[in-house]
Amino acid sequence: MRSVIDTLDLSVEEIDELIATALDMIQNPAAYEQACKGKKLATLFFEPSTRTRLSFEAAMYELGGHVLSMPDAASSSIAKGESVADTAKVISHLADIIVIRHPKEGAALVAARNASVPVINAGDGGHFHPTQTLADLLTIYQKKGGFRHLTVGLCGDLKYGRTVHSLISALSRYDDIHFVFIAPDELQLPDYAKRNISFSQTNALEEALPRLDILYMTRIQRERFQDKTQYERLKNSYILDADKMKLAKPDCIVMHPLPRVNEISVDVDRDPRACYFDQVYYGKYMRMALILKLLNGTTDGKAESPAQEATRACANPRCITTAEPGLPPLCKRGEDGKTRCLYCEAEVGG
Amino acid sequence: MRSVIDTLDLSVEEIDELIATALDMIQNPAAYEQACKGKKLATLFFEPSTRTRLSFEAAMYELGGHVLSMPDAASSSIAKGESVADTAKVISHLADIIVIRHPKEGAALVAARNASVPVINAGDGGHFHPTQTLADLLTIYQKKGGFRHLTVGLCGDLKYGRTVHSLISALSRYDDIHFVFIAPDELQLPDYAKRNISFSQTNALEEALPRLDILYMTRIQRERFQDKTQYERLKNSYILDADKMKLAKPDCIVMHPLPRVNEISVDVDRDPRACYFDQVYYGKYMRMALILKLLNGTTDGKAESPAQEATRACANPRCITTAEPGLPPLCKRGEDGKTRCLYCEAEVGG
Amino acid sequence: MRSVIDTLDLSVEEIDELIATALDMIQNPAAYEQACKGKKLATLFFEPSTRTRLSFEAAMYELGGHVLSMPDAASSSIAKGESVADTAKVISHLADIIVIRHPKEGAALVAARNASVPVINAGDGGHFHPTQTLADLLTIYQKKGGFRHLTVGLCGDLKYGRTVHSLISALSRYDDIHFVFIAPDELQLPDYAKRNISFSQTNALEEALPRLDILYMTRIQRERFQDKTQYERLKNSYILDADKMKLAKPDCIVMHPLPRVNEISVDVDRDPRACYFDQVYYGKYMRMALILKLLNGTTDGKAESPAQEATRACANPRCITTAEPGLPPLCKRGEDGKTRCLYCEAEVGG
Repeated sequence: MRSVIDTLDLSVEEIDELIATALDMIQNPAAYEQACKGKKLATLFFEPSTRTRLSFEAAMYELGGHVLSMPDAASSSIAKGESVADTAKVISHLADIIVIRHPKEGAALVAARNASVPVINAGDGGHFHPTQTLADLLTIYQKKGGFRHLTVGLCGDLKYGRTVHSLISALSRYDDIHFVFIAPDELQLPDYAKRNISFSQTNALEEALPRLDILYMTRIQRERFQDKTQYERLKNSYILDADKMKLAKPDCIVMHPLPRVNEISVDVDRDPRACYFDQVYYGKYMRMALILKLLNGTTDGKAESPAQEATRACANPRCITTAEPGLPPLCKRGEDGKTRCLYCEAEVGG
Repeated sequence: MRSVIDTLDLSVEEIDELIATALDMIQNPAAYEQACKGKKLATLFFEPSTRTRLSFEAAMYELGGHVLSMPDAASSSIAKGESVADTAKVISHLADIIVIRHPKEGAALVAARNASVPVINAGDGGHFHPTQTLADLLTIYQKKGGFRHLTVGLCGDLKYGRTVHSLISALSRYDDIHFVFIAPDELQLPDYAKRNISFSQTNALEEALPRLDILYMTRIQRERFQDKTQYERLKNSYILDADKMKLAKPDCIVMHPLPRVNEISVDVDRDPRACYFDQVYYGKYMRMALILKLLNGTTDGKAESPAQEATRACANPRCITTAEPGLPPLCKRGEDGKTRCLYCEAEVGG
Repeated sequence: MRSVIDTLDLSVEEIDELIATALDMIQNPAAYEQACKGKKLATLFFEPSTRTRLSFEAAMYELGGHVLSMPDAASSSIAKGESVADTAKVISHLADIIVIRHPKEGAALVAARNASVPVINAGDGGHFHPTQTLADLLTIYQKKGGFRHLTVGLCGDLKYGRTVHSLISALSRYDDIHFVFIAPDELQLPDYAKRNISFSQTNALEEALPRLDILYMTRIQRERFQDKTQYERLKNSYILDADKMKLAKPDCIVMHPLPRVNEISVDVDRDPRACYFDQVYYGKYMRMALILKLLNGTTDGKAESPAQEATRACANPRCITTAEPGLPPLCKRGEDGKTRCLYCEAEVGG
């Protein structure tokens, strides 16, 4: 059974294939309107994310399938005292594919290891959110003609923003990508996310803007700042408005994972370079392509990294293992040679 | 793009056409069961209204379409910090038509002005609820054979009841309609709603009942009364029961928008003149007719009244502009010559 | 109109017929995929039960029908001040069949008496939950080859567990069933549930286990114990684990209505005798068979027991009549000759 927990579960070739399928779906929607006829997709949302849920549900309907919707899994009986593992086993008897969102890191992997149907991670805490990245990739592909020779600015909260980390690791597999990290010092990208990439970093959006092919904005939350006076000083510099857009190249595109609060001014919406609503549009098609691929059930693709029993429990308080004590403590060897929790990838004793 | 925010957005001719379509749907349901095949209707409910939501969803299913359901929009991520304008833009990429209910007056208009698909208002605060009025109109049409030469009693809370205001303005476009407003003084119809209509008013339901062709009951809430002793004195006089029904004409019909609490006694349900559950039945067909009309996408119909920038912000605390600060302050000239907020129609400086 | 409130509303012959239909659906799913085309099933859940709701919704989709979902009826406008009776009348105009779950005993019967479409009880307080029993029956039928000559152990909370009571009364209609009730004294089966059956009882799971053909586990809640030291002493004895399974026959099956907490250890899941996830699988097909039977609308079957007006109101605080004062106080003569509330079956004055 093939599941997608992280964008990197998909090879570069598979992403190419998903993009090709998505573009064909845009061109020939009628060819796909029965593609998943009779199939049922379950949306298990243990924390609300209406946009993501509706995007998956719209995708399934456009493929001719049915939807079992659980917008409120956290307050439901399924959450009260029932493990994610049991829920995955139960839903496997009711649906043909499961989309899960959960506040704990690694929860989607737990579901995938226990389900007998494919599982798509729609966000597990601050960890992974692969279909947002797939949406971003198709948007870039369509607007920039591919993934090569790009200067990509990422602005805002680069420390905690999983969207940003996931996009960086996905784009870093292509040639000649240069990243510009635009953030206050306290919210700069962690060092581990900077390995093997070409990048520069700055505090100043205006300074970086003229060089960019892509500007990816994210929200900065006041509560992230220890020094509130610094927040007050900086907050406006990370608000993109029509004035700042004058500094950008004529073909620089502006992206945002949404929802925005005020970090992109409404007056930018009319700028043809604004692409953040296009991301919603393309996201639906990438989800369609992914659902179709997983339901068609080729089990090829990247082999799961072999897990081994860990000698110590994971200490990450955001890890699903701390919420669901029945889980066996498992670990794997990371790319950096360190032993990491299988579920949340925090470092643990081997 | 054509949207329906107020019943008066539809001309008398269009209402005739919707009634004709709804009646044909009742006669020939099979002819419509593929009418909206492959289309998706989104129900964005920022406050709960299960009856209205399920009526729209049942309507869409009977037309062969799909439903993206958001029963809990207020507690969802889409509500947290995201504007109605952005939500409308996002959902436009996922659905073909949007039904919105929101506690703020003017919210549906904001959605309509930002969506790229048709929007139907399913209630915006105490402002409009056009599909309830369409349900009422088809019920009257079927039970009374048309909209002419009718004495229509409206009983209960006539001051705050939007259902009542909307029905009055819809019926006042037909010939020879006489209204009887039956309410305690504190809850009588506001003067602005009495313009250009033939009416009488009274405190006494028993006194009015023998003259009526239609009795439209609404709920009176205790908390509306400043003088609780008056409430205690009056409360039973506005409860319709089998005894009072003896005073009514043999062909007088009894209507109610539901849910009722105790203002219509259960012993009236068996009276063939009781039509309040029929309103639910007819409401579904009028919603089907409206969805079909808007999806078929003729953009003719009443031109939107031209808006102009307001010099002062709207002061109505129930207006969407007070909840969503990014909205431009817009106003229009009312029929009474006064300058009114474009969104909520409260009077503002020009 | 035929509704199913209690498992005993179905005759032994009808249960045979449902099982035959369910098995045919498993063998020939394609033969049923249009069986309920164009029909709408409403799931009215006045308390959450995601597993049961999704099972009904999956069942309806596999029959080609539509679903009107109300996962949150309790917090919805339909619950606020509207009676179950009115809700049933309203939904009858929107759906072709109603599934209701409600915390009050007798609520499903109230819905059935007011709806003009079939009603299926998906749990009314601690009273009935017939489709769980149907799921259990098909599981037993498939795993044990029928319902005769079985020793059935029921373990855990036998006092309050409605699943257990319902299964006992359903199985007691077959030949040569012997029950073993395994529970602490405080949670043993009430005497009224032991009439006309062959049974023995014990406190010790290990003692009973070797004799059983079926072990039906249920959850024991700490708060049920008055004597907490007894709870501490007993709690582990009612946890089934791989070690205890060594005492069971090679063909003894283990069942549980789910969700489990810790009363069945995860290490039992891999035991081929563990059937609790199979119950989910079979439950969906029994729900499909029941929906199809009721929508096909034969009105034969067990005649409703004649109700008569009660002279005293029902005093059971969990009865729907205490929550919904408009209901007429009705009673019927029980099998034991006592006069019982029609809705909740508590004893009342005649």
